[in-house]
Amino acid sequence: LKNISILGAGSWGTAIAILLNNNGHKVTLWSIDKEQINTILTNRENKGFLNDVKIPEEIEVTNDNESAIIDKDILVIAVPSKVVRSVCELFKSYIKPNQVIVNLSKGFEDESLLRLSEVIKEVYPQNKFVALTGPSHAEEVSCNLPTTCVSSSSNLEDANYIQDIFMNHTFRVYTNTDLVGVEVGGALKNVVALAAGISDGMGFGDNAKAALMTRGLSEIAHLGVAMGADSNTFNGLTGIGDLIVTCTSMHSRNRRAGILIGKGKTLKEALDEVKMVVEGVSNSKAAYELSKKYNVNMPIVESIYKVLFEDYSAHLAVNNLMTREKKSEKAIEKNMLDGI
Amino acid sequence: LKNISILGAGSWGTAIAILLNNNGHKVTLWSIDKEQINTILTNRENKGFLNDVKIPEEIEVTNDNESAIIDKDILVIAVPSKVVRSVCELFKSYIKPNQVIVNLSKGFEDESLLRLSEVIKEVYPQNKFVALTGPSHAEEVSCNLPTTCVSSSSNLEDANYIQDIFMNHTFRVYTNTDLVGVEVGGALKNVVALAAGISDGMGFGDNAKAALMTRGLSEIAHLGVAMGADSNTFNGLTGIGDLIVTCTSMHSRNRRAGILIGKGKTLKEALDEVKMVVEGVSNSKAAYELSKKYNVNMPIVESIYKVLFEDYSAHLAVNNLMTREKKSEKAIEKNMLDGI
Repeated sequence: LKNISILGAGSWGTAIAILLNNNGHKVTLWSIDKEQINTILTNRENKGFLNDVKIPEEIEVTNDNESAIIDKDILVIAVPSKVVRSVCELFKSYIKPNQVIVNLSKGFEDESLLRLSEVIKEVYPQNKFVALTGPSHAEEVSCNLPTTCVSSSSNLEDANYIQDIFMNHTFRVYTNTDLVGVEVGGALKNVVALAAGISDGMGFGDNAKAALMTRGLSEIAHLGVAMGADSNTFNGLTGIGDLIVTCTSMHSRNRRAGILIGKGKTLKEALDEVKMVVEGVSNSKAAYELSKKYNVNMPIVESIYKVLFEDYSAHLAVNNLMTREKKSEKAIEKNMLDGI
Repeated sequence: LKNISILGAGSWGTAIAILLNNNGHKVTLWSIDKEQINTILTNRENKGFLNDVKIPEEIEVTNDNESAIIDKDILVIAVPSKVVRSVCELFKSYIKPNQVIVNLSKGFEDESLLRLSEVIKEVYPQNKFVALTGPSHAEEVSCNLPTTCVSSSSNLEDANYIQDIFMNHTFRVYTNTDLVGVEVGGALKNVVALAAGISDGMGFGDNAKAALMTRGLSEIAHLGVAMGADSNTFNGLTGIGDLIVTCTSMHSRNRRAGILIGKGKTLKEALDEVKMVVEGVSNSKAAYELSKKYNVNMPIVESIYKVLFEDYSAHLAVNNLMTREKKSEKAIEKNMLDGI
């Protein structure tokens, strides 16, 4: 049994803290927000993030940076992708090389376009690193509803170690050593969710949405392969699995923002209305920039980018996508395997 | 422009008749049911199958077997999978070798476990054959909502020919020469839809359903590869695309039957309540028998089979699936490519 700290007390961090406590580990839940920590300590509930879920007394809850880190075997990063680097910097003076880092965040760093494992490696170059991702709403995990995830590291032993720590009879963990594929799929599925929302908002149906998801995933896989990923990863839980959960859920902010844009609102109006962080917007920008950097043809990503940032009409974008030159499905997939 | 007959006037046959008429072809819609034909002739609407959709006057509607076949360039088969062979036999004396057959039906023949293209080839050995399949609710196609499909034939020229006939600015057709993969994916997605329904009926969430769909598709792909398919086909519109439409639609009979079973009804009770043909039930049997024949490990298919036909508890089945030995995602996908 291990000493584990969860760095970040959003809904996912909280659900994972409860899961690891159920598995018998000694768990600490840290947040930068002192007020939030005090509220959790008072109510043993993380209101606004994971309502009506009891946080067991055995879970230590803290705002103190040092005590969150010292004597811990495993540090789980569960903060928004935009602050992953700054949160890592915050703990730099306490970290020891033998502590294993598990990252739950998904995305690319703005401007540098680095994957989050690369960002974390820059700050903690000596630590073992594992990403844990998959189709997993926090609300369902906290109620012990059956869920699957993937423990991913370029080093299989490290992935196996984290698989053992997290797995139980309702939380099934697979391993995958294709860290690039796992990270690219997790970050870019939000772009497709945004596109699916726009399609719904325009009044299109299930046929159009299924086509967008299928062809969107194919684009993501093209890019991933160009970045060094294994194309099979995109057919797995962190690819199509996570995409399905995100595109069909009523709770997805990306989908909700997309619906508003599909109904004719501007990006700014849509974001003002959704209020929370819509990761798909910055992901769309990153995806578009990566497609240029790696010279990969991504018509759906390009359309979303134009609709979001260049005031392009969503109706014209759909029309362009439907009337491109005739294609063979197979030729496209073949290209994917060739890395184009 | 071609003379085309649609053999079968269900919702999908009717929607395709309207699509081809819009594309400028001379279309005939045939049904074995004389009363249905008379009702369509009177109302120019196919009530009970495609409500509130006008059937244009230019579409010839007939119950006559001979006039449905003679002088036609293309014959489109759009009947339930169980009657594909008998309907083909019905027209055998009129058919000419230069007529191209397009099949819209999905499934395997009971007992023989033949794919439908093999069944049709046995009856019409000289004719060119193309399967047209993909994520396509008839209701949406008849309203010109954006839809994608795949024209599949072992002969690319034949697939291209049918792509040209069907494609328009809201109906985008890809080609794929992997006929085995296209047929296996189209038939077996209903098994996964049934499983997804059972999961919903048991009160499980989106995480469980996404896992079932992802791992279910992986099983289907394993089997398909053992049967000679290209694994990439299962990542395409006829694989994951069609699976998404079926598993997330409220209209799917397979999902509805599954929900009832998940809530504790027997198969017979569920089928009595749904009333219509639930293709996933016979598909589950075929999938199970094919997994034995080709010696492919299909834990989800086996569980569904036991729940449907051997009174096995759905709760136990889920528990078994979640607590199997720990696995690597990648190893499984690698096996898939090895044809295991």
